[in-house]
Amino acid sequence: MKIVRYRHDGRDGYGALEGDRIMPLDGAIGSLAPAAGAAPIALGAVRLLAPATPSKIVAIGLNYADHAAEGKRELPKEPMLFIKPSTALIGPGAAIVYPPQSTNLHHEGELAIVIGATASQVAAADADRYILGYTCANDVTARDLQRRDVQFTRGKGFDTFAPLGPWIVTGLDPSDLAIETRVNGVVRQQSRTSMLIFNCAYLVSFISHVMTLLPGDVISTGTPAGVGPMQVGDVVEVEIEKIGCLKNPIAAPR
Amino acid sequence: MKIVRYRHDGRDGYGALEGDRIMPLDGAIGSLAPAAGAAPIALGAVRLLAPATPSKIVAIGLNYADHAAEGKRELPKEPMLFIKPSTALIGPGAAIVYPPQSTNLHHEGELAIVIGATASQVAAADADRYILGYTCANDVTARDLQRRDVQFTRGKGFDTFAPLGPWIVTGLDPSDLAIETRVNGVVRQQSRTSMLIFNCAYLVSFISHVMTLLPGDVISTGTPAGVGPMQVGDVVEVEIEKIGCLKNPIAAPR
Repeated sequence: MKIVRYRHDGRDGYGALEGDRIMPLDGAIGSLAPAAGAAPIALGAVRLLAPATPSKIVAIGLNYADHAAEGKRELPKEPMLFIKPSTALIGPGAAIVYPPQSTNLHHEGELAIVIGATASQVAAADADRYILGYTCANDVTARDLQRRDVQFTRGKGFDTFAPLGPWIVTGLDPSDLAIETRVNGVVRQQSRTSMLIFNCAYLVSFISHVMTLLPGDVISTGTPAGVGPMQVGDVVEVEIEKIGCLKNPIAAPR
Repeated sequence: MKIVRYRHDGRDGYGALEGDRIMPLDGAIGSLAPAAGAAPIALGAVRLLAPATPSKIVAIGLNYADHAAEGKRELPKEPMLFIKPSTALIGPGAAIVYPPQSTNLHHEGELAIVIGATASQVAAADADRYILGYTCANDVTARDLQRRDVQFTRGKGFDTFAPLGPWIVTGLDPSDLAIETRVNGVVRQQSRTSMLIFNCAYLVSFISHVMTLLPGDVISTGTPAGVGPMQVGDVVEVEIEKIGCLKNPIAAPR
């Protein structure tokens, strides 16, 4: 199933996307069910929002060997965690704002896990039961600020720096999907999720032994090689096989 | 005014603490008002909770020169930000759980700012209008994991690693308050908020130019020198002049 979150007639809701029609869903993200008596809505009549409203976005610092090499970093022995704030979240089509504090804004296309049930101290073998599905994420990064600060929080935490979407795909095997990031149609990053150092089940287990994951929380699993700059006016796309394409323009601050 | 959040008869609410009585308040944290017709509740009849429910806790890495010196770190030119997840939050009296992954759990007593109104791109001169008040925080840290990871997120992000309270004090000048951290009654950290490198108004301005601060969000302003270990069975207290004392025991994992 493809789960969307959308704005229609001034109201936000979840829905199941079937072709170009949205079947409205009721309930919270961990327990969505068909909305009784609700009519389908045309995809073209809504604005898609980020498909989850995470309390936190836990992201992984180095999780593809080729990206670690391009940054001249050692391979991590354990996942390196950082947090992007929920205020950074935007949906498909929404603008990534280039902050005046930076002169080196980078894309980082990533596979994102969306949590479906409260997860604490979960074994990797049980992780699937806590995963609602998968979507595309762009771990937008002000590379200059990230390098200056040591901590990644500022460089990766600006408002609009966490595009997510276009929808959550459930029942998906995430272990070997093609992932590609394009800027203005030119391929910048191209890899497969089989190249992840720490796989999705391992990440859910590792993180849930540190902090409780709540329904709707997002784990952004790390980016492959090929990160690079974006300019105001560019359009960046993160496309993952069997999921879809997350597309966002870069805008100047208002 | 002292704003508490409390559990009473299975219900959570905000209140104004007057002596040993709580006057119930209605509304969200940025717009609390006396609950019409509500009877006062005895402080002894409730369990105090963390006085805010932040969407994020933004903490400052090095903000007292003496703490930077004890860690042999250079003084920062700008605030170094990191985020503690909302799942780490606990209230006064609740147990800090010593995680099995660490053998070096430290206290870090800190003055915390509680945001009262949505703050984006706020000038330091206007910061007071976005601050609801101040409380005590303990930036509990697994020092071994913090050092190993480079990123602070894991070492400072475990469930129970963000004690906050006992209440929010409004109308307070935070510029020169005594701050003290004790373990089992023995003073470990002792300083004044006048020693902060970046003051509260500056921090609200700086952070709000990166990420929008929401009502209830918390800024933990950094810790003075004297950080040190805590063991299971210890009791840690963070006391700040004109605010009060945040007291938490250290417990083994269940």
